[in-house]
Amino acid sequence: MLIVMKHGASHEQIAAVVKVIEELGYEARPMGGRNRTAVGIVGNDGTVDPGRFVGMPGVSEAVPVSKPYKQVSREWKDEPTVVELPGGVRIGDGSVVVIAGPCAVESRDQILGIARALRDAGASALRGGAYKPRTSPYSFQGLQEEGLEYLAEAREATGLPIVTEALEPGLVDLVAQYADVLQVGARNMQNYPLLRAVGASRKPVLLKRGMSATISELLLAAEYVLAEGNPNVILCERGVRGFDPASRNVLDLTSIPVVKERSHLPIIADPSHGTGVRSSVTPMALAAVAAGADGLMIEVHPDPPSARSDGVQSLYPDQFVELMGRAEVVARAEGRSLGPVPPVKAQRAAPVHS
Amino acid sequence: MLIVMKHGASHEQIAAVVKVIEELGYEARPMGGRNRTAVGIVGNDGTVDPGRFVGMPGVSEAVPVSKPYKQVSREWKDEPTVVELPGGVRIGDGSVVVIAGPCAVESRDQILGIARALRDAGASALRGGAYKPRTSPYSFQGLQEEGLEYLAEAREATGLPIVTEALEPGLVDLVAQYADVLQVGARNMQNYPLLRAVGASRKPVLLKRGMSATISELLLAAEYVLAEGNPNVILCERGVRGFDPASRNVLDLTSIPVVKERSHLPIIADPSHGTGVRSSVTPMALAAVAAGADGLMIEVHPDPPSARSDGVQSLYPDQFVELMGRAEVVARAEGRSLGPVPPVKAQRAAPVHS
Amino acid sequence: MLIVMKHGASHEQIAAVVKVIEELGYEARPMGGRNRTAVGIVGNDGTVDPGRFVGMPGVSEAVPVSKPYKQVSREWKDEPTVVELPGGVRIGDGSVVVIAGPCAVESRDQILGIARALRDAGASALRGGAYKPRTSPYSFQGLQEEGLEYLAEAREATGLPIVTEALEPGLVDLVAQYADVLQVGARNMQNYPLLRAVGASRKPVLLKRGMSATISELLLAAEYVLAEGNPNVILCERGVRGFDPASRNVLDLTSIPVVKERSHLPIIADPSHGTGVRSSVTPMALAAVAAGADGLMIEVHPDPPSARSDGVQSLYPDQFVELMGRAEVVARAEGRSLGPVPPVKAQRAAPVHS
Amino acid sequence: MLIVMKHGASHEQIAAVVKVIEELGYEARPMGGRNRTAVGIVGNDGTVDPGRFVGMPGVSEAVPVSKPYKQVSREWKDEPTVVELPGGVRIGDGSVVVIAGPCAVESRDQILGIARALRDAGASALRGGAYKPRTSPYSFQGLQEEGLEYLAEAREATGLPIVTEALEPGLVDLVAQYADVLQVGARNMQNYPLLRAVGASRKPVLLKRGMSATISELLLAAEYVLAEGNPNVILCERGVRGFDPASRNVLDLTSIPVVKERSHLPIIADPSHGTGVRSSVTPMALAAVAAGADGLMIEVHPDPPSARSDGVQSLYPDQFVELMGRAEVVARAEGRSLGPVPPVKAQRAAPVHS
Repeated sequence: MLIVMKHGASHEQIAAVVKVIEELGYEARPMGGRNRTAVGIVGNDGTVDPGRFVGMPGVSEAVPVSKPYKQVSREWKDEPTVVELPGGVRIGDGSVVVIAGPCAVESRDQILGIARALRDAGASALRGGAYKPRTSPYSFQGLQEEGLEYLAEAREATGLPIVTEALEPGLVDLVAQYADVLQVGARNMQNYPLLRAVGASRKPVLLKRGMSATISELLLAAEYVLAEGNPNVILCERGVRGFDPASRNVLDLTSIPVVKERSHLPIIADPSHGTGVRSSVTPMALAAVAAGADGLMIEVHPDPPSARSDGVQSLYPDQFVELMGRAEVVARAEGRSLGPVPPVKAQRAAPVHS
Repeated sequence: MLIVMKHGASHEQIAAVVKVIEELGYEARPMGGRNRTAVGIVGNDGTVDPGRFVGMPGVSEAVPVSKPYKQVSREWKDEPTVVELPGGVRIGDGSVVVIAGPCAVESRDQILGIARALRDAGASALRGGAYKPRTSPYSFQGLQEEGLEYLAEAREATGLPIVTEALEPGLVDLVAQYADVLQVGARNMQNYPLLRAVGASRKPVLLKRGMSATISELLLAAEYVLAEGNPNVILCERGVRGFDPASRNVLDLTSIPVVKERSHLPIIADPSHGTGVRSSVTPMALAAVAAGADGLMIEVHPDPPSARSDGVQSLYPDQFVELMGRAEVVARAEGRSLGPVPPVKAQRAAPVHS
Repeated sequence: MLIVMKHGASHEQIAAVVKVIEELGYEARPMGGRNRTAVGIVGNDGTVDPGRFVGMPGVSEAVPVSKPYKQVSREWKDEPTVVELPGGVRIGDGSVVVIAGPCAVESRDQILGIARALRDAGASALRGGAYKPRTSPYSFQGLQEEGLEYLAEAREATGLPIVTEALEPGLVDLVAQYADVLQVGARNMQNYPLLRAVGASRKPVLLKRGMSATISELLLAAEYVLAEGNPNVILCERGVRGFDPASRNVLDLTSIPVVKERSHLPIIADPSHGTGVRSSVTPMALAAVAAGADGLMIEVHPDPPSARSDGVQSLYPDQFVELMGRAEVVARAEGRSLGPVPPVKAQRAAPVHS
Repeated sequence: MLIVMKHGASHEQIAAVVKVIEELGYEARPMGGRNRTAVGIVGNDGTVDPGRFVGMPGVSEAVPVSKPYKQVSREWKDEPTVVELPGGVRIGDGSVVVIAGPCAVESRDQILGIARALRDAGASALRGGAYKPRTSPYSFQGLQEEGLEYLAEAREATGLPIVTEALEPGLVDLVAQYADVLQVGARNMQNYPLLRAVGASRKPVLLKRGMSATISELLLAAEYVLAEGNPNVILCERGVRGFDPASRNVLDLTSIPVVKERSHLPIIADPSHGTGVRSSVTPMALAAVAAGADGLMIEVHPDPPSARSDGVQSLYPDQFVELMGRAEVVARAEGRSLGPVPPVKAQRAAPVHS
């Protein structure tokens, strides 16, 4: 339930509402918005009587939140959430933020080289896996902390904020020391201890939809992060499992308008995993922009055939340049623009790890 | 197998190739293209020896067609097929052709009224079901031949060519007397007698992807139509069955680039059935355009809440006007334009059936 | 709605109920059951007031039928439907009726030989396709009427009733001249003109679940047949489309208890199409029996590697003998038995069509 | 690759093979089986030349392992793995081991009461969640360590070994102090750090199939556990995501024969989660036994309507008694029997944690 305060309600009136909620044994979460101040009730509140609040001074109404998720819902917060990354990159403000990079960090040269190329092409952030969840225990599992260091070095060199995956709760602190955005992968969408850990970290979180997750389940997974006090969640449509071997997954772009209707959180699309086929990546990236995505996540590799993972779906750098040009035109058709290219932090003379 | 002739091969040389194919017990299908003339071998040709053709005068090469489908494949015919409708509407020529209308023809007034509104909004063709395949035998099954007559009347009044469904082989001739395009619905994608019947009719065919059909199966269904000698097939992505109740189906837009890579046939998208939710129709229509669709099929009803079928996914007329405006801008971003609005045939003083 | 009469209601009382229904503009369907007589109201009866019937002489109660399907529902008819085939074979009476045979009739020798082997192994009916719905127009499409004649000959020789597919409405009469059970294949589950045609034929109908049909949709498809006045429908679970290439389809055996709860119609399982893998057919056949299936449909071929279709999922004859032995033991564990082997009609000296 | 030794190969000959493998930079894993001794090569061995081993004294042959999984495959180890639990319970030895209990441990009385009832009904092990992975952060998350203590107490009282879930790597050690079998839930099937942690623990592991996991992916997840040196993995089919709301999941029993063909690991079925509907649990349990499952996992609750999770799919205790009777008869039909009821360890006077 959400207790909506009248315009101009006083601090005392809000405090009184909070006190009642706490006396009832629940947690109160006051939220000051541009248009209204409201106090959310967190806990199993099916039995709270709205009559307890209606009529209190300064209270406008008591709104039951009908969805199983609460803090992620539009009912709870109507204004879109904007997640801010270093360098002035803002996801959810109407711009189309492009996050690009290789599936995995494979070497210092690889990541530094591709980061520069991506920046030149107009990317706003750099992705790259240091810890890789691999279907087989015998596949390349990532460079791990060494990979994180190369990512940080690439950030120093290019100014691009870093998006990289945290695979388990025990590694969240370490990854958070390097990353600007903590990615939770599709396989881990319902890894609740991990969701709690990234929620506690206060870093922005990129939460990928699970392979067979409904949109409700995706929003409930995000609710775990918000319930820990971290509001900076970016959702990511990356395709769901389908029956047709023509594509690796089925990129369900309808999730974009559905999420936007139900939630205030931004949502981006990953057509690289979503299709798994290089020649489909650019058309589906453009489609995602037209459908209203707040950004794109694109796999680009300097030499896809030699990639240690996901080579068949990685773009060549020149294909990425073409994609950026076309994405910008489609974005403009809807009165939007691509996200900014962050400035290089020239003041830092040397990279952190060299 | 495809026997590709040299540039400038003579009629006699082509005839000689045809003769050899027929002597081997197969059917020969000569095809003159802009860039090459080729002769296809139809039949179970796994055992044909290419050496039988290579070296014949005028023969450039013998190309095995590796896919289970043949005449629909890019290997067989590289140039895109353009399906021409009355009024100068061309599907597959790079334009974005919008076919719109109600799910079902419900009355003379309904279809005439909406047809005029759609024409004013820029639609290129009119859809409307006269025979409706309904999950329940107790649901409205369509106005049947009366509905066909109203559609013809709407065409007279607006110039819009008619797209309507043929439900069974025995009705194809009747429906073809009224329709400009024969629609084969998703439930009938593998109704082979029906596919043969519409193939024999020589009318353009709009073939909808089945609810759980792979793209290969869709192309093989189209092959049935082409195998009857009818090359005018328009494919239609209309969503596949998924697990998430958030949408009625999963609109699999990746099918668009995949079809374009494998086949020369045009493909359009139906975001109305593909999402089943009114608020998702416009975003997904724009996404389809950005993904490269040759057209859109949109359900519009003068009063959706009173529609006898599919009301929840039908746009209001003013929503359709907005969709058209936005679709045009997205099309232009990629250097394309919306299809033309056909002229009203003013010379015909009276409607055919009045 | 269903008007349930009191025990011992008179003909006059029933007739009075029928008259009221007809006066309201609906169709009345009186049904005498072992435990009760009831009169069903067919038509869009959402608005019929039960009060119109309650209180009439002989009326016990007016039961709203809550499901979209009506005549197939348990609410409408509680006693299980038993479909009777020639030779004393009864599907739905508690026995496990095994229908076996090749995917397609390929030759007179093939079908006569395998029919004798199946009879010796204890089968109750013979399956075999004369008209084959094939994904590719270039694949073997069946021997057609010649195949029907061979099937009839096999029936003469073995006494086994014939189950074979009708592919389109226009062929139903022809197929019904030969067949004891008209099969409607998975691709045609929502081919409504075909469902109406087999409904009108009065032959028993074997209705296969569509590749992505829900159980509600399966029951609604059966409702089309019952709505034409043909109550003899056997449902068949044959697997739904899944994502795992380990099997051709996902045999959803849970449909068996679910159907039995919702409907009075018998349901059998087809583990040959349901798995698509020979080594899984017998385990899943046993599982279907244990789950409560009223029968099995099994593909058996004298020489699977040379089969013209579905060879990889066809059992060798000796594998079928083993399956029958094990199925019988599992059936007995639940107090059931395999269906009878029908007697050869020795009196008919010559086959019908020779 | 697997180096198979001749019958009677000496220790020295085996040691020589191990040495060569290690010199090549791989890990050698010698395995003494009943029928053969073999040495597996673990690592990315695509480039190992079999000729390096063929011809060495005592070597019979060098077998390439063609599947992406290795140690779980039949090629690697042909004899079925039997996982032994305390009390003489052996999963994989041909018996049908029934693991039963509530979804979650809710109180000391609840778990002690139900454990006694289950033991009386013939169960071989007790399940119950102390840590619950819940879709919503606001749902009951389990009694956690308190729940583990009650489980241990129930084991003391009944002799039933305990199966309970470990949700994250950091809790594996704690859970392993109480549990006899560590369960990895469907949501965590690809939680690789967790798989490694349970692999390192040496406790038997019950690995549930993920909601949209292929059988190959399930086997690769098991490979993670075996790769850590823990061979005691029990696979569990618990249903995959489907499109039909008639059941919560699609229990894919075909996975049982497929797993048995590909792997030596035992596989059980969970018809409670697999159907999500109480009335389907018993039919599908019997079906699983008939399909060859090595055991069943059944949710039973003393009072399902008051259960804090999964009440609608939990059996009432008397329904469980009936299930056990019928499962035993079906097992016997195939020459099998239910697993043993372990003896109560009467000597331990007091529970471990009281």
